[in-house]
Amino acid sequence: MKIGIIGTGLIGGSIALKLKEKNFTNFVYGIDQNEENLNTALELNIIDEKADLESGVKNSDLIIIAIPVDSARKVLPSVLDLINENQTVMDVGSTKSGIIESIKNHPNRKRFVAFHPMWGTENSGPKSATKDSFAGKAAVICNREDSDSDALAIVEKVIENLEMHPIYMNADSHDVHTAYISHISHITSYALANTVLEKEREEDTIFQLASSGFSSTVRLAKSHPEMWVPIFRQNKENVLDVLNEHITQLRKFKSALEKENFEYLEELITNANKIRGILDK
Amino acid sequence: MKIGIIGTGLIGGSIALKLKEKNFTNFVYGIDQNEENLNTALELNIIDEKADLESGVKNSDLIIIAIPVDSARKVLPSVLDLINENQTVMDVGSTKSGIIESIKNHPNRKRFVAFHPMWGTENSGPKSATKDSFAGKAAVICNREDSDSDALAIVEKVIENLEMHPIYMNADSHDVHTAYISHISHITSYALANTVLEKEREEDTIFQLASSGFSSTVRLAKSHPEMWVPIFRQNKENVLDVLNEHITQLRKFKSALEKENFEYLEELITNANKIRGILDK
Repeated sequence: MKIGIIGTGLIGGSIALKLKEKNFTNFVYGIDQNEENLNTALELNIIDEKADLESGVKNSDLIIIAIPVDSARKVLPSVLDLINENQTVMDVGSTKSGIIESIKNHPNRKRFVAFHPMWGTENSGPKSATKDSFAGKAAVICNREDSDSDALAIVEKVIENLEMHPIYMNADSHDVHTAYISHISHITSYALANTVLEKEREEDTIFQLASSGFSSTVRLAKSHPEMWVPIFRQNKENVLDVLNEHITQLRKFKSALEKENFEYLEELITNANKIRGILDK
Repeated sequence: MKIGIIGTGLIGGSIALKLKEKNFTNFVYGIDQNEENLNTALELNIIDEKADLESGVKNSDLIIIAIPVDSARKVLPSVLDLINENQTVMDVGSTKSGIIESIKNHPNRKRFVAFHPMWGTENSGPKSATKDSFAGKAAVICNREDSDSDALAIVEKVIENLEMHPIYMNADSHDVHTAYISHISHITSYALANTVLEKEREEDTIFQLASSGFSSTVRLAKSHPEMWVPIFRQNKENVLDVLNEHITQLRKFKSALEKENFEYLEELITNANKIRGILDK
């Protein structure tokens, strides 16, 4: 099977590496506006050939769109314009309602499968790609009833080869859940970084004192705006809803401290501890 | 050298394991109100003998207090009452002004060295102890001018054997900096866990969708209240100060989203990205 990867960065690159290792694909076209990324992807054997959008799409059995969600939404209709009924298109974006809406009336809608692998890092670019990133993680497919069964079967094969487990969800639920479980973490982390950068003027002290705890909590704050502004924009309502709740929760800690109500503080912390039982199932 | 560890949990246990491996000590007394922890520590060769406070302290050249900061503050004067001028006492607490204040007029004040290793995890108890936890991390000594030079030299040797690098600071600065760099991370993480637990009623969905990003940001929310309530209590003013700033920073994200001011959102994220340059020096 020939694959065309639109966006040869962290996610597209990691998928390509794994599908090559598994011999799921024997040829990968790389399509990217960023010539430097393309060249790096070629050097790293992530792709076999550079291609423009039209020839890359036309020559691939499976096209994987792995670019920021706003660009993905723009490019998807053009990709669907180019394909025939034997080709399949999937994306990897962190928001799903918008992209599905953008092609709901497209004659080739059924060749598209809306996909979201629950893995990522704070890094980007083909140099960050690694082939074993996805193993054991959840792979969400949204609105599967709107895809042809053979297109769906191909994406399910991709999921199997990535060693992920599929979860089926409608796009609106997906966007609500990812706001809770992924998007808010990024805002928290960005705001924490900004807090420390605002209050702690001595950069050397941050560097020297930063414990593994701080580094862990602030890790996502290294994530690029090119990827995250479009996600927050597309998932605005859900993210705002969770962000308001988060501010409310922080105010409870503030109030417990201000009133020196340490029993309440303990209650808040004991409740938060429940996350251990859920995450470490 | 004989060492008495008061509190055979994560930190005390990890220090004991490393100092034994390095042959810095040939005998460790374990002192702990928690009999189960003591027995586990004995089984795991973290300690060589269980002891009560009085005999454990009297028979040790170096006493390491590794219990929650409120208990440490209470027990330190009694420990100093028991020792002679050849013995040294150090703590490992995450707040420093309170404990130093508690013994400022004690006749044996100079035998105490205020210490804080910048390492910890969300876990607790002797089973979580590991000997290579501290390597490469910062070890803060506070108000060194108030300790005898031979006592200070012993703690510096401990730091060397833990493969940490010493940083000297006064206790008030320490408490300000740790509020920024360590304590606020915990509140953020607790509040994030509570947000998700409040909004996401489907525990299975949290479990299934939780990406490495979410797990990383929420990791510290597993930390026990027995340790953290006393830290927040002792460092209340500094923590509140940083918490207020953190809520202000989160409100900026809220406002950018509400007003759909995506340029401002990008600016906030780009600013947060600076943390990469500081942490990855």
